[in-house]
Amino acid sequence: MTQTAPPAPAEFMQDLIAFIQSKGFIWGPSPEIYGGLSGFYDYAPLGKLLKNNVEQAIRDTFQVNGFWEVECPTVVPTKVWEASGHLGGFSDPLIVCTKCKASFRVDKLLEELFPDKRIPADKFLATIEKEGIMCPTCHSAFEKEIKQHSLMMKTKVGLDIEAYNRPETATTTYLPFPRYFDYFRKKLPFGVFQIGKAYRNEVSPRQFTLRMREFTQAEGQLFIFKDQKTSYAPYERIKKDKLPLWNAKLQREEKKPKKKSVEEALADGDFKNQAYAFTVWLSYKLFTNSGVPEENIRLRQHADDEKAFYADDAWDIEVKLNSFGWTEMCGAHDRTDYDLTQHGKHSGRDLSCSDETHKKEVAHVIEIAFGTDRITFALLDNFYNPQDIKEGKTTFHIPTKLAPIKVAVLPLMKKDGLQELSYEIYKELSKEHVCSFDTSGSIGRRYLRAAEDGTPYCITIDYQTKEDGTVTLRDRDTEAQVRTHKDKLADTVRVLLDGTLEFTKAGTPVQKEAKK
Amino acid sequence: MTQTAPPAPAEFMQDLIAFIQSKGFIWGPSPEIYGGLSGFYDYAPLGKLLKNNVEQAIRDTFQVNGFWEVECPTVVPTKVWEASGHLGGFSDPLIVCTKCKASFRVDKLLEELFPDKRIPADKFLATIEKEGIMCPTCHSAFEKEIKQHSLMMKTKVGLDIEAYNRPETATTTYLPFPRYFDYFRKKLPFGVFQIGKAYRNEVSPRQFTLRMREFTQAEGQLFIFKDQKTSYAPYERIKKDKLPLWNAKLQREEKKPKKKSVEEALADGDFKNQAYAFTVWLSYKLFTNSGVPEENIRLRQHADDEKAFYADDAWDIEVKLNSFGWTEMCGAHDRTDYDLTQHGKHSGRDLSCSDETHKKEVAHVIEIAFGTDRITFALLDNFYNPQDIKEGKTTFHIPTKLAPIKVAVLPLMKKDGLQELSYEIYKELSKEHVCSFDTSGSIGRRYLRAAEDGTPYCITIDYQTKEDGTVTLRDRDTEAQVRTHKDKLADTVRVLLDGTLEFTKAGTPVQKEAKK
Repeated sequence: MTQTAPPAPAEFMQDLIAFIQSKGFIWGPSPEIYGGLSGFYDYAPLGKLLKNNVEQAIRDTFQVNGFWEVECPTVVPTKVWEASGHLGGFSDPLIVCTKCKASFRVDKLLEELFPDKRIPADKFLATIEKEGIMCPTCHSAFEKEIKQHSLMMKTKVGLDIEAYNRPETATTTYLPFPRYFDYFRKKLPFGVFQIGKAYRNEVSPRQFTLRMREFTQAEGQLFIFKDQKTSYAPYERIKKDKLPLWNAKLQREEKKPKKKSVEEALADGDFKNQAYAFTVWLSYKLFTNSGVPEENIRLRQHADDEKAFYADDAWDIEVKLNSFGWTEMCGAHDRTDYDLTQHGKHSGRDLSCSDETHKKEVAHVIEIAFGTDRITFALLDNFYNPQDIKEGKTTFHIPTKLAPIKVAVLPLMKKDGLQELSYEIYKELSKEHVCSFDTSGSIGRRYLRAAEDGTPYCITIDYQTKEDGTVTLRDRDTEAQVRTHKDKLADTVRVLLDGTLEFTKAGTPVQKEAKK
Repeated sequence: MTQTAPPAPAEFMQDLIAFIQSKGFIWGPSPEIYGGLSGFYDYAPLGKLLKNNVEQAIRDTFQVNGFWEVECPTVVPTKVWEASGHLGGFSDPLIVCTKCKASFRVDKLLEELFPDKRIPADKFLATIEKEGIMCPTCHSAFEKEIKQHSLMMKTKVGLDIEAYNRPETATTTYLPFPRYFDYFRKKLPFGVFQIGKAYRNEVSPRQFTLRMREFTQAEGQLFIFKDQKTSYAPYERIKKDKLPLWNAKLQREEKKPKKKSVEEALADGDFKNQAYAFTVWLSYKLFTNSGVPEENIRLRQHADDEKAFYADDAWDIEVKLNSFGWTEMCGAHDRTDYDLTQHGKHSGRDLSCSDETHKKEVAHVIEIAFGTDRITFALLDNFYNPQDIKEGKTTFHIPTKLAPIKVAVLPLMKKDGLQELSYEIYKELSKEHVCSFDTSGSIGRRYLRAAEDGTPYCITIDYQTKEDGTVTLRDRDTEAQVRTHKDKLADTVRVLLDGTLEFTKAGTPVQKEAKK
């Protein structure tokens, strides 16, 4: 995780976590009643709805861009991880205190102490010694050895087959390649994606749900012949779109990211080819469609010395968080033919393929990979507004499309048949949207609660409803109210939610004084 | 799994699996290129869309009935499984061949040999000896010992914390109980549900995706004070609905299940109370809303000697499969205060709760538990029609709502701008529905393909479209075609899919001879 801006006040983070836990977005570390295991969390009702909405936006974005979802196992035998390189290489460097025996990740320790330097792995031990760095817990000296701690969670299948909980979804997505090739009628390119659990046994997970031991990863994989990359049809449709690009040169010169069309960026050499340019564009779309504000997104090119050894082209998406500053959230990598070559070798299966113009070539893979927990956290961080608290009110300003609950249905009173009338409305609207039905507390208290939940619209059923069938509809952000007929609600709410109707046109305005 | 009807021809099963694998619903056992690990499967593009639709129907059904979704970790520390009883008790009885050393599940072996008897666990060894049962592989004698094989997949977290991949979702749903109680404003009853992965290390998984080592479980949990069970408000709304009930008495008398209203069943003593009656009703709704045909569902009461020791009331849902006959798919259990009492004891946390009328009581739990892979399989089994094959055509008659792809957009020709025109229509419809865009092969070939995928509607863009803007719309099941204007498509398709428009009224009928 890259953090290039100074961290926002720890106070904001504290506020935010308190909001997230007390309002029922995320709880943990779980299982809380057993003391909690760090790096594991429960998504509470509001958080789960929010995460589902993020994942639905991701599904829709991939799907409309021609990528098809698959679901592969999370428990995978050892030989696969030997082939992918995870078994040998997927580990963290640890250093242990000679006295209190606490373990620390050396890379993170040094990153925090020297935020402006990039210390290479072979200099970790020397730096610890030279700078006289001591154990942060008990201030004693560290052991003069760096241990490699595997991030893989091992298990066993059947009576004695070794397997691992997958440390990433991607590898499992590559394995059915021969099946894909048949399914897509023996033609490249094609795209598939997967959203599912992955496991990293970090020694000391931190940063709440940004760095979990069990997390949900989403990734898209474009399978393509090498020579097809330079002329990729979908590129034509998106080449005029602008992206906030922070290429290696701008970073070196300490300049800001620059908005450029995909086409310009390709001409400038920021991307090597059309297919890769398209996947960077798609990564950006996945984030904006998931509700992350455009102004808090930048695309950062990897410097040459940062790239994975197999990566031909590599950009990250970074999102600006109030709690942690600019934070890496997504990688788009041209992985070339590395993966299919490896799995071909290790499985003994010929994974090359042919069509009219290609003879027995191993397909290249361009990958987009990110975590849906991180996007969910980014939304909570970006749209929670602690300034509201001072005004006696907390509003979660989540965009309507991502809001966990779309409509709160509120009978003014429980008596006189208002509750029954309200329930009918709730039931009708629930056919299309996630709604809440809240009868407890004063109407003002219930409006506040709905604002905290991020619910864009409240519907109040009062005595006038019994007379003329109208209800009040209240907007979360402006607090404006209109009256409309209950039989029109389904249509009105639908167009309000899809953004094609302005709130003030949703009914007859209610005067402020008439609000109560 | 209970199988009370004779299994359908193995031929059907072979046909079905071939269809499922070749059309891109489910592949495996995976990873196939590494030889496959039994009990693990890949959901291919069509299967994943189908499974997503099943899970969305489950979400919607729970949500509209007032249950809220949560997501809890799949990796959980050992002490939780000690408390739940899984660590000691969750195992299969195995018997090993003295010669070839193959292991078999004794219970399954005896069930197959004696389908009409129920042999209790303490008679397994005696029966093997008395009946002279030999190893099915090499026909040698078995060892005179039954071993308990744990179904739990063990792993490690951090440096040395023992944990397990969860064998069920339910236990993890119980653990945040104190958080729920706050979230639901310190009032019972409330309901939560979870859909997520669970892991059972079966020794020899069989029956395709009906019995996997890694599977997706869905379960709902109603938390309720004991005395609230007899007067549960939502019951009033559903008590007139009819359910196909096969109570213990009808089973003993070898009679068929009987359709009864929930109310009648409660009066007859089939259910002990309103809250439990409601959850059985909800289980049934979850299955019908997921597309399982009503006529293939029956609710079977557990005989007293079948119930889990903590279960006060227990019914199963059984679904009739062409491949395996009547198959257990879901359990609804009144688990009383067993779970929260256990976790209270083991965690040292007081999990009792109080409100105006209850003082420090441990809440009861009524549970619904089933697998989404099984429902997905049931849909494939029930709606795949091998008779069509003889007519030169395979149609997957999946109900519209569950169909993986809703609309196939087909340009008659790739040339003359028809492809571009079609792509615009595809893009527009894709905003609302999962669509496919198919340009390869004759139009007849593409219609056949769409029918195999279960796609309810095909839209063909032809030369007339260029002239007057109309397209043909084709119905999967009747093969009827109508012409309608492309600008009306979004609205037309929406009402066709939600079932409010009859196909014949969707446009001007096209005569059979004009079909090509």
